[in-house]
Amino acid sequence: MVNLTPLFRHVEENRDKYLEYAKRLITVPSVSTYGSGLEECADLVAEMLENHGFRVERFSNPEGGGPMLLGTMNYEAHATLMFYNHYDVQPAEPLEKWTTPPFTPAVRNGKLFGRGAADNKGNIAARLAAVEAILSTLGEMPVNLKFLIEGGEEVGSPGLEKFVRENRDKLFADGCIWEYGYVSRSGSPVIYLGQKGMLYVELEKEGPASDLHSSWGAVVENPAWRLVQALSTMRGPDGRVTIEGFYDDVVYEGEELLEKLDIAEFSPPHKLLKTAEQNPLRQLFLEPTINLNGLYAGYIGPGSKTIIPSKASAKLDIRLVPRQNPEKIKQLLLQHLEKNGATDIKLHIHQAYPAARTSPDNFLPKLVADTAATAYGKSPIIIPSGAASGPMYVITEILETPCVSTGCGYHGSSPHGPDENIRLTDFTANIKHIALIMLNFKNYLYTG
Amino acid sequence: MVNLTPLFRHVEENRDKYLEYAKRLITVPSVSTYGSGLEECADLVAEMLENHGFRVERFSNPEGGGPMLLGTMNYEAHATLMFYNHYDVQPAEPLEKWTTPPFTPAVRNGKLFGRGAADNKGNIAARLAAVEAILSTLGEMPVNLKFLIEGGEEVGSPGLEKFVRENRDKLFADGCIWEYGYVSRSGSPVIYLGQKGMLYVELEKEGPASDLHSSWGAVVENPAWRLVQALSTMRGPDGRVTIEGFYDDVVYEGEELLEKLDIAEFSPPHKLLKTAEQNPLRQLFLEPTINLNGLYAGYIGPGSKTIIPSKASAKLDIRLVPRQNPEKIKQLLLQHLEKNGATDIKLHIHQAYPAARTSPDNFLPKLVADTAATAYGKSPIIIPSGAASGPMYVITEILETPCVSTGCGYHGSSPHGPDENIRLTDFTANIKHIALIMLNFKNYLYTG
Repeated sequence: MVNLTPLFRHVEENRDKYLEYAKRLITVPSVSTYGSGLEECADLVAEMLENHGFRVERFSNPEGGGPMLLGTMNYEAHATLMFYNHYDVQPAEPLEKWTTPPFTPAVRNGKLFGRGAADNKGNIAARLAAVEAILSTLGEMPVNLKFLIEGGEEVGSPGLEKFVRENRDKLFADGCIWEYGYVSRSGSPVIYLGQKGMLYVELEKEGPASDLHSSWGAVVENPAWRLVQALSTMRGPDGRVTIEGFYDDVVYEGEELLEKLDIAEFSPPHKLLKTAEQNPLRQLFLEPTINLNGLYAGYIGPGSKTIIPSKASAKLDIRLVPRQNPEKIKQLLLQHLEKNGATDIKLHIHQAYPAARTSPDNFLPKLVADTAATAYGKSPIIIPSGAASGPMYVITEILETPCVSTGCGYHGSSPHGPDENIRLTDFTANIKHIALIMLNFKNYLYTG
Repeated sequence: MVNLTPLFRHVEENRDKYLEYAKRLITVPSVSTYGSGLEECADLVAEMLENHGFRVERFSNPEGGGPMLLGTMNYEAHATLMFYNHYDVQPAEPLEKWTTPPFTPAVRNGKLFGRGAADNKGNIAARLAAVEAILSTLGEMPVNLKFLIEGGEEVGSPGLEKFVRENRDKLFADGCIWEYGYVSRSGSPVIYLGQKGMLYVELEKEGPASDLHSSWGAVVENPAWRLVQALSTMRGPDGRVTIEGFYDDVVYEGEELLEKLDIAEFSPPHKLLKTAEQNPLRQLFLEPTINLNGLYAGYIGPGSKTIIPSKASAKLDIRLVPRQNPEKIKQLLLQHLEKNGATDIKLHIHQAYPAARTSPDNFLPKLVADTAATAYGKSPIIIPSGAASGPMYVITEILETPCVSTGCGYHGSSPHGPDENIRLTDFTANIKHIALIMLNFKNYLYTG
C-alpha cells in the first residue's frame, strides 16, 4: 500500500483549483429538458478530459440529449475502471426560490451552490480531481480508466442504450462507478448497489375544442374531472398503487443491508406516508411507486374564472425495481385505464428503462466500501438500491459489468430542487475516495 | 298601441351607430379578475348614460370591482323599470385562440367579435339604443327608467349586496330586466326567469417547503396526490356530486316549462355526461353541480421533470339552485373533507351567493314573452332559470322585485371563451324587444 499522506495533502491544498472545475461546469446551463447548452457543455467536458490526459471520442446523439463523450486513459494495466457521469441538468425552475442564480456558482458557508453542484457536475469535477491528484503525487495511474459522460440523463438518456449496445467492445470494463452518492445526516458516506428504473408518462384528456362557459358543467363532460377520477383509481389514499399486478414482480433482495439503518439517517424531507411508517427504508429503496410531478387544467391564474377547460394533463413518474419490466408496467397501466372505462385518456411515454442491481458479494462493493471508510474516516452505509432512477442497467445488463454508485453530495444537497449544493468537506473527501478506488481497483479485482 | 313601423325602421337605419356604442365599450379591457380598466370603463358608461338623458350617480366600491353606476330617467310615470348590467368582463386568455384581438372589436360575417360582445357590453349598448330609438321617434319615454350597472359581476359582484341593501329606496322599481339572453339554434329568443347561485372555492394542499426530488415519492406525502384523492371523493365518474346532503334542498319548480324543449335547441358544445342523457334540460337548468375550472401542481412545462410538488390547488365553481344556501353548502363541503380525513386541504372562498327565481305567473315574464314574439317574429322559449350564475338575488330577494333576463346573444356567442361574438341581426331584434318592453311596461304592470 502506498503512503497516502502526500496524496491526501495534495487534495486538500488544491481544493480551490478542483472547485473551479465544478464552477466552470455549473456556469453552462445545460438543461436537457430544453435542449439548451448541451454542445457547449460537451465541449467543456471534452477539454477538461483532454487536459487530464484522456483521449476523447465524441459521438453525436441523433435520439436527443447532448453528445456522448468517451474519455480513455490506457495504461495496459490488465484492469479497467469505468466512470459514468452526465453533464446535463434538470430545469432550474422555480427560479424565484434560488438564493443566488442557479447557473452562477456561489460558495457560501462552506458550500458550493448551483444547478448541477450535486447532480452531476460536482462529481465530474471530483473524479477529474482524483486523476490529477494521483498523477501529480504518484506519477502514474495503476489502472486503465474510461469516462462515459452523457448529456441526456435527466430526460431519460435517449440513445444511451443504443450507444452501449453498439460499442460493447470499446466500453469494456471490469467495474463501473456510477454518478452519485451522498453523506448521510450522521456523516456516513452512502453507497448504492443499484438504481430504480423509470417509466415516465403523461396522461392527457382532451375536452371541448376551446374553454367553455362553466354553466354547461351540469351536463357536459369536463376533462379535468375525467383526469382526476382516472388518477384517483391508480393510487390509494395510503400511497399504495392500485393498478392490478403492479407489485407482482417485486422482490426484496438486499433487505438485510437495511436492517441496522434508521430512516432518520436519510432525513426524510417531508411527512411520511402512513404505509411508510412501518418500514420506510424497505419502501423507499426496494418498492416501486407512482409519483405525480405535475397537474394542469384550465385557469390557474389569480382569482376566479368559470370555464370547462379544453384539456387536462398529468405527469407521472413510475419508479421501477429489479424484475419489473417497463413495457409490462405500461401494459398494466393501459389495461387499468381500459378496465376503468378511461380509454379516452391518452398515454404518452417520456422515459422507459428497467432497474439495475449489483450483488453485495461482488468485489466492487467491497472495494468501494473499504476505501470509503479510509477517505471519510467513517464506515459507509450500503444500500442495495438507490431510491432514484437512472440508466445503470446499460452497465449491469448490457455490458454485464458490476456497478456501484458513490459521490460528493450530502443529505441537504437538494438535487433537482432550488439551491442545489454540495459541502466543500464532502467534495475533498470524495476526491480522496475516488483516488483510493483507482489505486486499489486492480488488487480487489484479482483478489476480492 | 303605438304604430311600431317608424320605431323599427329607426332601429334598422341606426344599427351602425348603435354598434359603435358596443365597440367603444369593448375597446376598454375592463377585466375585473385583474382589476384593470374598470374606472376607465365606468367613465365611458357614465358618459353614454348622460348622453341619453340619464342623471348618473357613481358609487365607489371599497369591496372590489369597479364603481357602481346608477342612471335614472324619471318621467313620473307611476311605473319604474330597472335594467341590471355590468361593464366588467372575464379574462380573455387564452389569447392565441382569438381570431382577432379580444379588445379590438371586429365585424366579420354579420357578427361583432370582442370580449364582452355578448357578456355584457353588447347588452348595455342595445338598451341605450332602445332609449335613443324611443326618444327619437316618439319624443318621450312612457316609463321611469333606472340603469344599475356594476363593474364586478365576473368576480362575484363584491359590494353589490351591501350597496343594494343600503339603497333600497333609491333602487325602487316595479320590475327589472336582467343582463343577458340568447337566441337558440332554431331562432327562438330565450328568456330566463332566474339564475343559479354560486359558491366559487379554491382547494389548496401545501406540501414540502420546496419541490423535492421525486425519488422520495415512495415514502413521503405528495400534495398533488392528496388533492386528486380529495377531489375524487366529491364527484362520481357519472358527474353526480357525492357530498352528503348536497342535493337535499333541490326542488324542480318550473320543470313543466322545459317539457316541450329539446336540448339540441341549446347546442350543447361538448359531449353530454351519461347522467344528463335522460333529462338534460332538467339537469342543466334545475340542478346544482360542481365544476373544475382549473388544476395546478408542480411541473407543467414540456418534457419531464421528476419532483414532488410543493403545492397543489384546484378551482371549483359550485352552481346553486333556489333554496340551496351557499353557507350551508360550504359547511357540507368542510364536513365532507373532514369525513374523508382531508382537513389538511384548505378551502378559500372566492364567491358566494344564492340563486334567484321569478314566478311565470308574474306580469313581467308575460310582458317580456309577448314583446319578444313581436320583436323577433318567433315565440320565445321561457326557461325557469338560466344555467349560468349571477347576483340576481339582490333584485328578487333584497328588493323583492320581479326580474327576467333577456338579451342580444345567440347560441354561438361563446361568452367567457375565445371569439366571443353577437350577430348583428340579433342585436337589432334585441333593441326592438327592449324598446317594446319599455313601451308596454306600465300597461302590463297595472293590467297583467
